[in-house]
Amino acid sequence: MAAPTKRVLVLNGPNLNLLGTREPDVYGSTTLGDIEKALKDLAKGLGASVECRQSNQEGELIDWLHDARDSFDGVVINPGGLTHTSVSLRDGIAATGLPTVEVHISNTQARESFRHESVTAAVCIGSVIGFGKNSYALGLRALIDYLNATG
Amino acid sequence: MAAPTKRVLVLNGPNLNLLGTREPDVYGSTTLGDIEKALKDLAKGLGASVECRQSNQEGELIDWLHDARDSFDGVVINPGGLTHTSVSLRDGIAATGLPTVEVHISNTQARESFRHESVTAAVCIGSVIGFGKNSYALGLRALIDYLNATG
Amino acid sequence: MAAPTKRVLVLNGPNLNLLGTREPDVYGSTTLGDIEKALKDLAKGLGASVECRQSNQEGELIDWLHDARDSFDGVVINPGGLTHTSVSLRDGIAATGLPTVEVHISNTQARESFRHESVTAAVCIGSVIGFGKNSYALGLRALIDYLNATG
Amino acid sequence: MAAPTKRVLVLNGPNLNLLGTREPDVYGSTTLGDIEKALKDLAKGLGASVECRQSNQEGELIDWLHDARDSFDGVVINPGGLTHTSVSLRDGIAATGLPTVEVHISNTQARESFRHESVTAAVCIGSVIGFGKNSYALGLRALIDYLNATG
Amino acid sequence: MAAPTKRVLVLNGPNLNLLGTREPDVYGSTTLGDIEKALKDLAKGLGASVECRQSNQEGELIDWLHDARDSFDGVVINPGGLTHTSVSLRDGIAATGLPTVEVHISNTQARESFRHESVTAAVCIGSVIGFGKNSYALGLRALIDYLNATG
Amino acid sequence: MAAPTKRVLVLNGPNLNLLGTREPDVYGSTTLGDIEKALKDLAKGLGASVECRQSNQEGELIDWLHDARDSFDGVVINPGGLTHTSVSLRDGIAATGLPTVEVHISNTQARESFRHESVTAAVCIGSVIGFGKNSYALGLRALIDYLNATG
Amino acid sequence: MAAPTKRVLVLNGPNLNLLGTREPDVYGSTTLGDIEKALKDLAKGLGASVECRQSNQEGELIDWLHDARDSFDGVVINPGGLTHTSVSLRDGIAATGLPTVEVHISNTQARESFRHESVTAAVCIGSVIGFGKNSYALGLRALIDYLNATG
Amino acid sequence: MAAPTKRVLVLNGPNLNLLGTREPDVYGSTTLGDIEKALKDLAKGLGASVECRQSNQEGELIDWLHDARDSFDGVVINPGGLTHTSVSLRDGIAATGLPTVEVHISNTQARESFRHESVTAAVCIGSVIGFGKNSYALGLRALIDYLNATG
Amino acid sequence: MAAPTKRVLVLNGPNLNLLGTREPDVYGSTTLGDIEKALKDLAKGLGASVECRQSNQEGELIDWLHDARDSFDGVVINPGGLTHTSVSLRDGIAATGLPTVEVHISNTQARESFRHESVTAAVCIGSVIGFGKNSYALGLRALIDYLNATG
Amino acid sequence: MAAPTKRVLVLNGPNLNLLGTREPDVYGSTTLGDIEKALKDLAKGLGASVECRQSNQEGELIDWLHDARDSFDGVVINPGGLTHTSVSLRDGIAATGLPTVEVHISNTQARESFRHESVTAAVCIGSVIGFGKNSYALGLRALIDYLNATG
Amino acid sequence: MAAPTKRVLVLNGPNLNLLGTREPDVYGSTTLGDIEKALKDLAKGLGASVECRQSNQEGELIDWLHDARDSFDGVVINPGGLTHTSVSLRDGIAATGLPTVEVHISNTQARESFRHESVTAAVCIGSVIGFGKNSYALGLRALIDYLNATG
Amino acid sequence: MAAPTKRVLVLNGPNLNLLGTREPDVYGSTTLGDIEKALKDLAKGLGASVECRQSNQEGELIDWLHDARDSFDGVVINPGGLTHTSVSLRDGIAATGLPTVEVHISNTQARESFRHESVTAAVCIGSVIGFGKNSYALGLRALIDYLNATG
Repeated sequence: MAAPTKRVLVLNGPNLNLLGTREPDVYGSTTLGDIEKALKDLAKGLGASVECRQSNQEGELIDWLHDARDSFDGVVINPGGLTHTSVSLRDGIAATGLPTVEVHISNTQARESFRHESVTAAVCIGSVIGFGKNSYALGLRALIDYLNATG
Repeated sequence: MAAPTKRVLVLNGPNLNLLGTREPDVYGSTTLGDIEKALKDLAKGLGASVECRQSNQEGELIDWLHDARDSFDGVVINPGGLTHTSVSLRDGIAATGLPTVEVHISNTQARESFRHESVTAAVCIGSVIGFGKNSYALGLRALIDYLNATG
Repeated sequence: MAAPTKRVLVLNGPNLNLLGTREPDVYGSTTLGDIEKALKDLAKGLGASVECRQSNQEGELIDWLHDARDSFDGVVINPGGLTHTSVSLRDGIAATGLPTVEVHISNTQARESFRHESVTAAVCIGSVIGFGKNSYALGLRALIDYLNATG
Repeated sequence: MAAPTKRVLVLNGPNLNLLGTREPDVYGSTTLGDIEKALKDLAKGLGASVECRQSNQEGELIDWLHDARDSFDGVVINPGGLTHTSVSLRDGIAATGLPTVEVHISNTQARESFRHESVTAAVCIGSVIGFGKNSYALGLRALIDYLNATG
Repeated sequence: MAAPTKRVLVLNGPNLNLLGTREPDVYGSTTLGDIEKALKDLAKGLGASVECRQSNQEGELIDWLHDARDSFDGVVINPGGLTHTSVSLRDGIAATGLPTVEVHISNTQARESFRHESVTAAVCIGSVIGFGKNSYALGLRALIDYLNATG
Repeated sequence: MAAPTKRVLVLNGPNLNLLGTREPDVYGSTTLGDIEKALKDLAKGLGASVECRQSNQEGELIDWLHDARDSFDGVVINPGGLTHTSVSLRDGIAATGLPTVEVHISNTQARESFRHESVTAAVCIGSVIGFGKNSYALGLRALIDYLNATG
Repeated sequence: MAAPTKRVLVLNGPNLNLLGTREPDVYGSTTLGDIEKALKDLAKGLGASVECRQSNQEGELIDWLHDARDSFDGVVINPGGLTHTSVSLRDGIAATGLPTVEVHISNTQARESFRHESVTAAVCIGSVIGFGKNSYALGLRALIDYLNATG
Repeated sequence: MAAPTKRVLVLNGPNLNLLGTREPDVYGSTTLGDIEKALKDLAKGLGASVECRQSNQEGELIDWLHDARDSFDGVVINPGGLTHTSVSLRDGIAATGLPTVEVHISNTQARESFRHESVTAAVCIGSVIGFGKNSYALGLRALIDYLNATG
Repeated sequence: MAAPTKRVLVLNGPNLNLLGTREPDVYGSTTLGDIEKALKDLAKGLGASVECRQSNQEGELIDWLHDARDSFDGVVINPGGLTHTSVSLRDGIAATGLPTVEVHISNTQARESFRHESVTAAVCIGSVIGFGKNSYALGLRALIDYLNATG
Repeated sequence: MAAPTKRVLVLNGPNLNLLGTREPDVYGSTTLGDIEKALKDLAKGLGASVECRQSNQEGELIDWLHDARDSFDGVVINPGGLTHTSVSLRDGIAATGLPTVEVHISNTQARESFRHESVTAAVCIGSVIGFGKNSYALGLRALIDYLNATG
Repeated sequence: MAAPTKRVLVLNGPNLNLLGTREPDVYGSTTLGDIEKALKDLAKGLGASVECRQSNQEGELIDWLHDARDSFDGVVINPGGLTHTSVSLRDGIAATGLPTVEVHISNTQARESFRHESVTAAVCIGSVIGFGKNSYALGLRALIDYLNATG
Repeated sequence: MAAPTKRVLVLNGPNLNLLGTREPDVYGSTTLGDIEKALKDLAKGLGASVECRQSNQEGELIDWLHDARDSFDGVVINPGGLTHTSVSLRDGIAATGLPTVEVHISNTQARESFRHESVTAAVCIGSVIGFGKNSYALGLRALIDYLNATG
């Protein structure tokens, strides 16, 4: 059965544009561009397409989520530092009605500094945490599997 | 005594542009446009005028509050998800020196999920919570009564 | 469509009988009698009638709520100091099944002294907070609008 | 060995007079009158007598506890909403010196809303929680067994 | 200078009517009647008069406080179990405008069980804690000294 | 109506095998064997049968709960020290789908040492706490009444 | 470069043997056997082999982890209810020195009941949460990618 | 019965040497010397003698308490800022075995800034709080009454 | 030794554009323009240059921090209300790798209202708090001293 | 006086079987076998004998404690990860009535990660913490000294 | 305008006498003597004089603060470990009425171990934190600027 | 190999000079002098020497720790009441760089009254808690073993 191509929006939040240039021992040297390119290739193999955007603006991410309702089938999001604080982003994800997967590069649950509680994860279908750049690939795969299963 | 027309700025924060399209069982099917139109009609009957703006950007809401100091007599605000988190918005309201009324569509005090504490309410003259779209009308009325009484 | 007259019970809790005689700089010099008279006038204009009672006894307030089920269409309540502590009053409001609006004269959310959390608000349809004696008028209006809307 | 008839005071706190008329899906449709009648029958079978009282007044419950010292051998109490808040009722139970059993109709330990901690349970000999109207019967039985065992 | 006789209202809250009959190892065997009699004698020696009342009803205590405004110069109060919970009693004390002294028989600060924080003490001029029945005498003396000093 | 014999599994958790030999002033001198024998007699009188097991192993208790689904109509459990800590046991009780009654010998709510919160009680139909060995008998009766009423 | 076959131990903790038979609306109707079979197939496609074990015993899971050090290259674990409580299991995972991936079937971060904090996640390389049975497949893939990347 | 003269040690902790020179609107203009002189006069009238010492050194206060065991019958202490923090001073008071009364000039229970919990009060027989310099006189009187009653 | 001119970026967060116009008794009447001009003069005297920017947008501040990596040697920042809430700004500061000094005009540690904890201070080299407009000058001086010392 | 040989049971909890093979920089390279052998030698010199057991099963440790009542005079226990969580083990230690010494290899009080509070220490006679393998020797010595002193 | 020479007292609390000899990687190798000498030079250039004292005794620091009222115009203080605990020192600073600046060598806000909350900072005019020995120089400069500005 | 004699400083904090005279049922009747004498004898047998000091002054203990750096090889300390509060003493121990063992006479972990958390233990090599006077002997032995092992 040839499912229609799934359109996925990949969103990255504050400071993730610096990936590969910042604390490489923690986050690796792969840039966000590298990740986005790999996701596009992976998507193609899975019968899907991805569009990738990054913003340091909470509000711009929310705007994109709102607009996504007509153009995308699902969202993969790494909210960066907004993970721990943004009720507005959480509301924005819930408001889209689109299945959303939260991904994190590092194992946020192993850092003592912040309450590693994610305020956004509760409105996502699931999370992939700690596998470096591979978290994005696994998250995309999880989303597409979900879309195919429910679709 | 014929009081001069009161000019009121009505601000809506993140995700409220989706009103009427999102979780209608919780928020009703009235759109933000419907609410804004009704507020304009109500204002006219109360010898006032309203201008309505919505943004998903915390900073843009603060900018508008700053600019409001010269052009408006008071503010009605529904800060959306920023209610629970934005010290900056709170400072912005305090900085205007304009009497401000906080309104909420649903009964935030009945939801267990978040600390329903509003960080912005403390710098408002008062709050109207839980009456659906009517919260806006009641808030506008409360503000104009206040302006007439102190004005 | 001529809706039948809405009968509203207005309840005031402990110490509110002293309104206008106590800390006038915080609560104004309007007495509870003044407020109740104004509410009756307002009710008339809104096609409603109000009956006003005050007690310093938690249990008497609960008794009145129980009795209200047959004689009233809704309740406006200022629980005074019971707001922060009385699970029994909360249960009493819930038990009536009548739509109830909670009102507060001063902005309880701006006072640091107590947890401004209201244990009763969660079982009310909504709250009006901080507008002095006008909180009662706005609360009455909110209730009647609600009764008219829900029929 | 024919033990003398045990006299038991059954007390019900705020809002329990509405049992059977309020949220029947949670509390069932049995009224307090039904429960009290069944308790009297059960008591008779156990060689005991019960007297049942209900009040929405914390102070009246305390008065009854004080008076019970001369006329009763033990107490079964459902403090209703006072369970979670009343240090005075707790002191009143302790002051009687009478063995007291606390009962609750619903499983308070399954509700997330309040700290289900009972401030009164610590001064009772034990608690029976969650068995609907049967909690009263079990509580009465527990008390009478206790009275028979301790003499 | 012959100061006019100071009139003092002595209030006792829930369960204090049982003094001398309850846990005598903690509270001694002196009854409330004994204490009240001794206070009257002491008052006479200090050029004052006292009237003593006790209630298990929070609301009745508040009523008495309200009425005291015209007939008394100050209040000595032992709120019993309401000390830890009653915001309404606190508001009632504050509302009288009369100088009030809080007294406790036992050293509440040595009991681990409750937060020994008194919610009423903050609106009293001071507290006397832990001296058995003598707490009342010391509290009365403290109040009369205060009344004499402030004129 | 002759109801079929109810089969009840009685489970005791860690250290309860030492009942009657350990801190007899707290737990009495009745052994677990005594209790189990008395339960069997009581069950017979109630038209039921009981099977009793005890383990110090959390996992063995869970295994028994799983197996009980086919062979029993309900469970009476005293989880011992697991009451306060075992999410797994809680999940195990919930997973059986069998009505379960939690019992405790001593009044856990009167001990300050631990948070007396039971993590298992929320998935039981109710609890019987504080009546010594009689807690088991009352719990069994509660369960059988429940099974008869729903069954 | 033909990497040697990766040997993966798949561990399931308490109550997961009931998967597919328990609360199917939450956990689906797929049994643990179904999942384990699918994982074996998936492993084969990824040039790996899996061995699957389940226990309701914390200690048995720890024993298996200890033994895994010689026979496996990595671990996929769903600790079930032990996730929130078992410091011993956490120590056991850390002690193996084997890369471990934690998986959860449901979105634990959306449930309010428990602190959704995992005490075990901090010693895993990452987590996959909320994708139903697919969490296992994604977790296996994540582990094998990790093993391939780190050699 | 002529009781022997009671010898009382009056201790003042850190910063109390500045009384009367510091924040006179809060603490009055009476100096510590004035207070100590008045206490000596009062003591004489009560058949007692007092010795007064002040130190800003926690350790010196403890030394004095130790030495007091042979030379004094009781202690009146205002621990100043050590009230809220010094477990060592608390141990020192307990170690003397002498009855000790804690006094405070201002109503510490009305200040929000610190937890007004006193760590020392628990080992005193009682406290006198909030009556300005009169707190010392009342405290001395309380102590002597106590010594006479137990002596 | 003639060190090359140090280039410093001075960032001001939300609402600081209103300095001098808002609550002058708290923040003084100096405007942000005045401060920025004085900083430029001071910088010149210290062999440095400053560029000053202000935004009410969290995201714009982060963008500027990112861009600063190539053009500046260090940052002086007053995050305003974001101090207490913005994990994203914290990450942005950390990501620049530039030494950053946090400054505050008023003594945030003397205000009870908020947790005065700064989430951003931990990634700065240090903080200067409470000296009015002089906090900026001291912060600039601290930064340049640091840059000169670390070379 | 020739005291009879003291029989000591040495228990080690989860993961301690891996001692010497796991994180040697934290726990050293001495194996549990080495420690047990050294303890036997030490015991002999102190006129005592030891038997050593280790289990990863909470329940097995409890079983051994129960059985120890007849065969041993005291217990030295390192509960491993159960230290922080096992109320059942705590109850098991208390139930034996045998004097028990808790030992820890590393300084648990210097690790921030967990609440270093031991739930088991409260029922032991004392603890020895942080001296590596020597903690066992010191703990054994402490126990034997205790047994000799108490007879 | 030639301002009179400002006299500044520089106080260092517990353990700061070891500066330069203790954990040099955290605190640098500059000794307290070096710092004090540099402060004297800096003071001279700013038309001020400094006197420097250090004590490990809380009480001695308080004594010096008291004496400073006549001889100094302001205080620079590094309270060391007393920062987090000493209410007495806080009271001592407040009691002097002298403007005081708190300084810290390391960035206390970046250490997780303690609540970095300073109990003394609230009564200082401001704080300088994290600039190594330069914190003292900046603090001195801040104080003298303040003294010059306030006259 | 004949190790040089180890010089050990034994420090006792506030109130420990009263050992043997205070609450003998808790602390025994052995005086501090007895303990110190026994420690000297024990030291001799272990090829070490001890010097013993006690102070009620936090600062004096810190002074002694500072001076110990040149004259001692290690420290055994019982900080008494400072255990729970003194960050300064903690810093003082850390600053010496000498291995330090913390000892407590009674089982602080069994007392509910205070957070038994020791703020000083984290900077010690280990702790010995609860063995009466023997805690000192065990602590000395632990220290000397440590000194011998580390050279």
